[in-house]
Amino acid sequence: MDVDALRAGTPGCRHRIHLNNAGAALMSQTTLDAVVGHLRLESEIGGYEAANEAAGRVAAVYSGLAELLGGRAGEIALFDNATHAWQAAFHAVPLRSGDRVLTGRNEYGSNVLAYLRAAKRVGAEIVVVPNDGHGQIDTSALAGLIDGRTRLIGLTHVPTAGGLVNPAAEVGRIARAAGVPYLLDATQSVGQFPVDVEEIGCDFLCATGRKFLRGPRGTGFLWVREAILDRLEPHVVEIQSADWDGARGFSWVPGAQRFATWELNYAAVLGLGAAVDQALNLGLDEIGKRNAELGDRMRGLLEDTPGVTVHDLGQQQCAIVTAAVRGVPAEQVVTRLAASGVNVTSTVPAHQQFDTEDRNPPPLVRFSPHYYNTEDEVEHAAALVGAMIDKLL
Amino acid sequence: MDVDALRAGTPGCRHRIHLNNAGAALMSQTTLDAVVGHLRLESEIGGYEAANEAAGRVAAVYSGLAELLGGRAGEIALFDNATHAWQAAFHAVPLRSGDRVLTGRNEYGSNVLAYLRAAKRVGAEIVVVPNDGHGQIDTSALAGLIDGRTRLIGLTHVPTAGGLVNPAAEVGRIARAAGVPYLLDATQSVGQFPVDVEEIGCDFLCATGRKFLRGPRGTGFLWVREAILDRLEPHVVEIQSADWDGARGFSWVPGAQRFATWELNYAAVLGLGAAVDQALNLGLDEIGKRNAELGDRMRGLLEDTPGVTVHDLGQQQCAIVTAAVRGVPAEQVVTRLAASGVNVTSTVPAHQQFDTEDRNPPPLVRFSPHYYNTEDEVEHAAALVGAMIDKLL
Repeated sequence: MDVDALRAGTPGCRHRIHLNNAGAALMSQTTLDAVVGHLRLESEIGGYEAANEAAGRVAAVYSGLAELLGGRAGEIALFDNATHAWQAAFHAVPLRSGDRVLTGRNEYGSNVLAYLRAAKRVGAEIVVVPNDGHGQIDTSALAGLIDGRTRLIGLTHVPTAGGLVNPAAEVGRIARAAGVPYLLDATQSVGQFPVDVEEIGCDFLCATGRKFLRGPRGTGFLWVREAILDRLEPHVVEIQSADWDGARGFSWVPGAQRFATWELNYAAVLGLGAAVDQALNLGLDEIGKRNAELGDRMRGLLEDTPGVTVHDLGQQQCAIVTAAVRGVPAEQVVTRLAASGVNVTSTVPAHQQFDTEDRNPPPLVRFSPHYYNTEDEVEHAAALVGAMIDKLL
Repeated sequence: MDVDALRAGTPGCRHRIHLNNAGAALMSQTTLDAVVGHLRLESEIGGYEAANEAAGRVAAVYSGLAELLGGRAGEIALFDNATHAWQAAFHAVPLRSGDRVLTGRNEYGSNVLAYLRAAKRVGAEIVVVPNDGHGQIDTSALAGLIDGRTRLIGLTHVPTAGGLVNPAAEVGRIARAAGVPYLLDATQSVGQFPVDVEEIGCDFLCATGRKFLRGPRGTGFLWVREAILDRLEPHVVEIQSADWDGARGFSWVPGAQRFATWELNYAAVLGLGAAVDQALNLGLDEIGKRNAELGDRMRGLLEDTPGVTVHDLGQQQCAIVTAAVRGVPAEQVVTRLAASGVNVTSTVPAHQQFDTEDRNPPPLVRFSPHYYNTEDEVEHAAALVGAMIDKLL
């Protein structure tokens, strides 16, 4: 991987040490140009007219995402964010009183809130599978908890904080063996390393464009396995997702398009497409390898810094590193690093309350490098944290 | 209104005669610059970091929309499109078996599909109020149809085709007198003429940025009256719309923010803000006056063209004009006008099936001027249509 060339094609590398890729990564110049180019076209010839001209390129975004995930273009629906994508999937699974949803203790807070609400509304039961000794979902416990009332397994692949990669494919084997639909929230994993729906064996996958895929903000997508479509009832219906029969009924359009809504930000969609193309050209194996190295390096340096405690979990760890700095609240670390041109962020324990119940972690500083970061940048950030502690001594 | 200056500040005016403002209007250079400027900032310093820097300007978008609609900033939630905004409102109204939803015969197709689906799901009844002799919703009939089981009145202010403006404020008086929540789909009216939630007396209003507001594609918003919030249960819950209580419950955050999701396309949001500011500076009264004149002129010219039949309804008509051209299918008219640099579009009867039941109109050509169009442009478009017919003779 030619990191220098990739940095030269990334405007933000000239301005910041960007270690907030789990928030939103830096767009490449190519991605920015794709977005801005389409906006200019819209302003020159009209928004619908520009979309018509770009129809082929928009179709290629679906193919690109399908290639990225190992699915088919017709199995992709585009959204403005992963939340709407995830909710479109979740609410399409029919749930009745007594039904059970199984999830993990590192599930993303928004997903948990949706589970809790559904449970309350229809009288379903949310079963939170315990973690194993590594802090990842305990797959043996999961297998034991599946029963005839289990309607869905919902898992966050890479939690927003905590450094771990959940054993998604092992969960997939269990889900398939039991015939239970499996919804994977891959928001923090797609673009960070290879994520293949066949290998994982999930039935739904949702993700966002802005994180490790380096797409524009305001983009998200849902992949739904074609074979499962007939068992689902999308929650939102509109003139593009269904055909009105002229009386008082309607039929869903083919494929995942039944989950989508009419209006999209096509400029952002084309930017997402450019970002996906770049990821495919670089190769997800290469990207994943480098990200694991950078994550390990970041983690190791912080672990070696006296006064810093790394709080990461998991057997397989990734490019998300969370740590506490003795004597300096996380928010202050973030502010001070920002003043030195280093972008990181802090975690909100209230957003991941099962984990908070387990470990009661304080707000942590989250460092999330990406392949275009250099080893020097990672070292510089760790050194700045070390200097903060030295100052306190 | 200084139309020349407004045209000079609108790149598209140099390239097209844009009469597809009911599809998506032309952005001004100021709006384009707001979007592109923020995208550049994101690419330079990071997506979250740019949003932090723009926090004050993002907050101003909520205030601007509140000023535009006559509501409060805390009553606004932002979405990627009007569909998600409308659905967030509709699905928050608790509906049980036997409950009734009243709507009109010109209701937007996507809304009708959502009604039909809800009716089927919970056993609610969708009551379609007849039109009066003008082809707009018959408010006397509406008043007579409200009963103790009526949970919602849903109305499309300006139908996507048909030229009419529904008597929204009269419907509001009836809704208020009966204490029934009132959801107004103002997608085609906001930005076209003054739309004030107090004057109309609605409880929800949803709209899009890209149409007569001249905002970017991929923007939409919902206004919800604060007084009605306690009677609603948003369908989507996530970490920004609710506070997780640490156990198995949660509480909604204050205001309309409970309808929103975490991730937004901030560049598009800032563009929407710029477009709203421009509309406020021009004055909605002025904009409405000019649009009514241009709509009348367009309609009159087409009515005076032999072989053209205008199909518009309504007592109050607007800047959406729909017409059939004898001997030339609507799609062909659109293509031929496009070849002459004129943007218009055609209607899809399947999208408005109550209206189709009533009138069985063919696909129609839809002309939708906006204040920055000139009288010359409107005349030129009408003349081109006339020439098409002359050619056939």
